[in-house]
Amino acid sequence: MAASENHRIVPVVLCGGGGERLWPLSRTSLAKQLIRLHENRSLFEATIDRLAASLGNDIVPIVLTGAGDRFVVAEQMRARLGNPGKIILEPMRRDTAAAVALAVTIAMQDDPTALLLVCPADHLIEDARAFGRVVADAAPVAEAGRIVTFGVEPTEPATGYGYIRAGAPIEGTAALTVDRFVEKPDRERAEAMIASGGHFWNAGIFLFRADVMHAALRTHFAEGLAAVEEAAREPIPDLEFWRIDETAFGAAPKISIDYAVIEKADNVAVVPARFDWNDVGSWVALATTFRGDSAGNAMRGPSVLVETSDTVVYSDPRMVTATFGVEGLVVAATPDAVLVAPKARAQEIRKVVAELRQAKRKEADLHPEVFRPWGSYHGLVEGDRYQVKKIRVKPGGRLSLQRHNHRAEHWIVVRGTAEVTIGEEIKMVTENESVYIPIGANHRLENPGKIDLELIEVQTGSYLGEDDIIRISDDYNRTPAE
Amino acid sequence: MAASENHRIVPVVLCGGGGERLWPLSRTSLAKQLIRLHENRSLFEATIDRLAASLGNDIVPIVLTGAGDRFVVAEQMRARLGNPGKIILEPMRRDTAAAVALAVTIAMQDDPTALLLVCPADHLIEDARAFGRVVADAAPVAEAGRIVTFGVEPTEPATGYGYIRAGAPIEGTAALTVDRFVEKPDRERAEAMIASGGHFWNAGIFLFRADVMHAALRTHFAEGLAAVEEAAREPIPDLEFWRIDETAFGAAPKISIDYAVIEKADNVAVVPARFDWNDVGSWVALATTFRGDSAGNAMRGPSVLVETSDTVVYSDPRMVTATFGVEGLVVAATPDAVLVAPKARAQEIRKVVAELRQAKRKEADLHPEVFRPWGSYHGLVEGDRYQVKKIRVKPGGRLSLQRHNHRAEHWIVVRGTAEVTIGEEIKMVTENESVYIPIGANHRLENPGKIDLELIEVQTGSYLGEDDIIRISDDYNRTPAE
Repeated sequence: MAASENHRIVPVVLCGGGGERLWPLSRTSLAKQLIRLHENRSLFEATIDRLAASLGNDIVPIVLTGAGDRFVVAEQMRARLGNPGKIILEPMRRDTAAAVALAVTIAMQDDPTALLLVCPADHLIEDARAFGRVVADAAPVAEAGRIVTFGVEPTEPATGYGYIRAGAPIEGTAALTVDRFVEKPDRERAEAMIASGGHFWNAGIFLFRADVMHAALRTHFAEGLAAVEEAAREPIPDLEFWRIDETAFGAAPKISIDYAVIEKADNVAVVPARFDWNDVGSWVALATTFRGDSAGNAMRGPSVLVETSDTVVYSDPRMVTATFGVEGLVVAATPDAVLVAPKARAQEIRKVVAELRQAKRKEADLHPEVFRPWGSYHGLVEGDRYQVKKIRVKPGGRLSLQRHNHRAEHWIVVRGTAEVTIGEEIKMVTENESVYIPIGANHRLENPGKIDLELIEVQTGSYLGEDDIIRISDDYNRTPAE
Repeated sequence: MAASENHRIVPVVLCGGGGERLWPLSRTSLAKQLIRLHENRSLFEATIDRLAASLGNDIVPIVLTGAGDRFVVAEQMRARLGNPGKIILEPMRRDTAAAVALAVTIAMQDDPTALLLVCPADHLIEDARAFGRVVADAAPVAEAGRIVTFGVEPTEPATGYGYIRAGAPIEGTAALTVDRFVEKPDRERAEAMIASGGHFWNAGIFLFRADVMHAALRTHFAEGLAAVEEAAREPIPDLEFWRIDETAFGAAPKISIDYAVIEKADNVAVVPARFDWNDVGSWVALATTFRGDSAGNAMRGPSVLVETSDTVVYSDPRMVTATFGVEGLVVAATPDAVLVAPKARAQEIRKVVAELRQAKRKEADLHPEVFRPWGSYHGLVEGDRYQVKKIRVKPGGRLSLQRHNHRAEHWIVVRGTAEVTIGEEIKMVTENESVYIPIGANHRLENPGKIDLELIEVQTGSYLGEDDIIRISDDYNRTPAE
């Protein structure tokens, strides 16, 4: 196939987005695409796996994400691909038009005629082989100068998606021209479109030549493109990440690529997406991956449903969720936050998140597990003058050299081996051993081993805030709050 | 007043019962009357406080409870009254007729004409002064040979209570004769009774002379009384508890005192109960003590209710519960178990508990906090070869001298002072200090101080079950499982 011979397809993975409609599972500090909730992979990891299966293991994807998620994204990239790809940090969220413009700008610095395959990180497509075939079918169409969209056969008159009305087949290809786009129709219109046939859901996946999209952006998104090109003129390396100029990027209008370009350009084609597709956009969509029962319920995690029908129950593995005599609900339970809402209003869950923010509840945005470049931690209990955390350090991970003014720490290693620096002394602490860090002592924790290091930390002191940390040296160029 | 001059009133507190309708807050291992859920007191403690306020601080209540709850009951008795009272352990649950027979048998060993005031431990009565006045009014009536019931003015045609139809006033007293009892009527009948007036709810509180009830039991519950008298002939002291014969007690029929005696005896009177009364029999009843809002919701604990009405939300203080777009529900969330059910079916929650038992979920019966005679503990996290617990030891509390074959333990003291025995060595471990117990070492933990001792225990080993404990010596006469 000419396209993949001449031009390697460069995957572009859009890994921003908060996934508020999946609260409390998905939160700002760990959005849905990064949670390992299906087959022990995150949706982002599944996306990377799918791209590698379709395009080859030597892909170097361009990944666009926010700074807050960068260490998790890099960890998951390395876990699936062995390389971190090219992770570009968006200084703030500017919707998909600016994100695509940014990817195009970066890609054109290498190869103006590269084919870019833009994929959201938060969609579930199980059949990687079918996905690969469809992309291969689309490649010659994109190569020939079209912006290719992928059209999913509608299974119901959904009102939350964009619809594409296909036109004539493009001879000698798998693609059709596009007659019209209809964004989020009302139910009646959606039913009419499905009845008339020839309509697809817009899967939000795109394939195009960088220079072709660049031209379309210049025509339809000129101001945004200029802002992004200014911002990304000289990306600044930061460890394995690339940073761009915040002020310049902030000038790009906040609009989706569909509204800004796809619905206006005259060179758009659609290739029928003959693969399964789930945008995991709500609890109801996610629930299609849960186990079901004969009463129309969908369950993930420990649950007991009594006289319950048409209900979605998500329960964290550490707890049990029981429903009795209810119908048509979503019940999602995690150890620190619970949601109950009607299934029919699953698209509106972000209203709840907004109310939680208003009430200044940290659970609105913060996940109990906090990811750091060296691993992660989560709180087990908070007392009056103490708190207990579970800490996981990745092989090779090393916390900053630091000290605390107000707390002492006890570390008990429960898995793996720690190299612990206290003052001038360095010692190895292994499973079932403990170590004590007095107040004011310079100290550092490192995992020199080949498996994850897990330890229990008991902090005692009069002030236990995360901001009582003086970093003397850090491997990861972090801000004080990270 | 003659009665209280001649015969001290002896309170009898019935502290059995599981409170399954308040699952997941109330569980077999810590039933609703023992949970400190209202003004930081348990319903049992509030009952003791009310009795002390009405009858004097020198009361020595007879408390009937199950063996599983004995240490919590004794702890709460001591906390409120300074003495443990006379705690009789019912070998198994035999409903209230056998419990009253047991209290009568025990009381008659001291004073056959004592006045006994029988109170369930799980009712909420806020106005202790009014309660005391009503009891004082009833005393001469009981003294004169009547079995006095207390009648609550009905506020709605409830179908879950027993009703008393009052007869003529008994001259010179606050009491009326009783025309008829109606147990748990249907709604129509309940409405008719309320419309006709002269009906009360049976509050389940009784005042009578021991010998008077003894005669009534002999007439109407002969077999049960004989079994109980046989069982309680020689109560066996066990620390501060009294044990009775299990086999003999097991022969008593399982029936309520209302069915067995009160509805049959001809010497029953009713005194109008001019005090607030809540049997806390369901989430809906408990919710009347919660804070409310203008949409008819009732909330306790951190919660955010959006477009929600007529809903009861209980949320553990360590978490947040959010509801959106729902009506008429009960949502109860604890860190290890969540319940969602319609308010209208709050009486049927035990069906859920039965299903959880069927599914062998430990959350059906076990509370995360486990009470021991020396204090309590609860699990913080369970890992592959480790687990972490928070342990609280009361002042003077001492765990058994013990050893483990499969686990080592790290203890970090976060509050108070511990006296720790390891092998032959005894040492003091104070706040912010830690100690290590190797596998196989004999060890013991004691709180020699004046405040609670709190410590974090990290167990590591290949087997971490509670049954890996060899007790060499124990202060509390416990079974291996306790």
